[in-house]
Amino acid sequence: MALMTPSQSTICKGCWQHMRMPIPIRGPLALPLRMMGVKISRMNPNLCNICETMFTRVKRRKQIVVTSTVLFADVRGYTALSQEAASSEMLDILHGFTDECAEAVWARDGIVNKFIGDAMLAIFNFPIMRDDHVEQAVRAAQDIQRRWLRRSGQASAGAVPSPGLGIGIHTGTASIGEIGTAYKDFTIIGPMVNMASRIQAAAAAGDILVSSAVYAQVPHLFSGPHAAEFALKGIERPTTLHRMIA
Amino acid sequence: MALMTPSQSTICKGCWQHMRMPIPIRGPLALPLRMMGVKISRMNPNLCNICETMFTRVKRRKQIVVTSTVLFADVRGYTALSQEAASSEMLDILHGFTDECAEAVWARDGIVNKFIGDAMLAIFNFPIMRDDHVEQAVRAAQDIQRRWLRRSGQASAGAVPSPGLGIGIHTGTASIGEIGTAYKDFTIIGPMVNMASRIQAAAAAGDILVSSAVYAQVPHLFSGPHAAEFALKGIERPTTLHRMIA
Repeated sequence: MALMTPSQSTICKGCWQHMRMPIPIRGPLALPLRMMGVKISRMNPNLCNICETMFTRVKRRKQIVVTSTVLFADVRGYTALSQEAASSEMLDILHGFTDECAEAVWARDGIVNKFIGDAMLAIFNFPIMRDDHVEQAVRAAQDIQRRWLRRSGQASAGAVPSPGLGIGIHTGTASIGEIGTAYKDFTIIGPMVNMASRIQAAAAAGDILVSSAVYAQVPHLFSGPHAAEFALKGIERPTTLHRMIA
Repeated sequence: MALMTPSQSTICKGCWQHMRMPIPIRGPLALPLRMMGVKISRMNPNLCNICETMFTRVKRRKQIVVTSTVLFADVRGYTALSQEAASSEMLDILHGFTDECAEAVWARDGIVNKFIGDAMLAIFNFPIMRDDHVEQAVRAAQDIQRRWLRRSGQASAGAVPSPGLGIGIHTGTASIGEIGTAYKDFTIIGPMVNMASRIQAAAAAGDILVSSAVYAQVPHLFSGPHAAEFALKGIERPTTLHRMIA
């Protein structure tokens, strides 16, 4: 118990919320369940591994359609930097990026779905549902940028200059579930997810760029001029996005 | 036993090769180990989940440098197609892509490291080591294209036209291991991996595009004119690549 941080739960938050089942994931009561294969989810340490995907199984469908908020974060200029920096320095950057992102997302009840090279895909409102999932995602993005700035400030003087992060957020309906039968890949797909990825690609280092759908739910988090038109890859018309400077 | 396909092993191929330890992963002898948490790896059904990452632990380092071959495969025009096709049809495409890729990679002793939207990252020569890992990767790519063509030929007449796949392959040294401490992401990183991804991006639908380093080890698999110069994103000079038409 002494090892727990305040954000760590002793029961699975997802199982409790959806079924009112207190599934122990930490402490002595968790041991018998662990023997049966119930473990802490790697996507969020307050969930169990069963609950990650069980809601799709309960519904006897491979995929379910949910309203959620998707956050993509990416290390800007990672490939270019990797041409000049030592591989140990590149590794340090990736280690730091992975840890800071994961902790910020978990603190806001999101799940880290996957890391893709120098980018992260996080989902909010599944399986832990929150009415304020859009705000939680934006606050997680602020946390990620803050953590990254602090970490960069702590880097030793001789180290390579730390690259900035670009973050993009969109919200809407998408399909969540397992793709494939031989290899099962649990992920979120749909046009909303592609759009979130495009928004992230347009974000400059240090920026959080969000769609109008996100902005409409959290106008109080923005100040000063923030709306601008962007030409996003694969989208014909200019898209209005809202920019938050970390 | 009746459920096993010829390619499925009863012991973990990785543990056997590296330590001469017969770790049962199928059949009655596998049960006690399963109780202890040893399971079939989802990256390759002939490996155990311990062995996926144990070689990095045995060496007491987060990362090890290995010579390997990396294969990226991608559904060409997936995002564009998703604008016009029904989401159920897009799901069918992703399900088929995931399964065909995984089975082709496993049959050649590679591991499926991850799926990223409509793309796959596969690694050959880790943890199952083979002197002919370059050839195995190219043959896996041929299998993937063949399987995809067969599957597309079987699609019903009214379905959307099936998109083609682009595949890129490169070989060299890279760093394999777990990134992060809070969230652990097992993956392969380094300039070789970035280059493989760039090569894949240059491959047209139906093509297998490989680097000169790959070609040099498997010239017998190519026929007719195959070399061409490509301008790859982020690479200043033109790059000579070798094209195999499925």
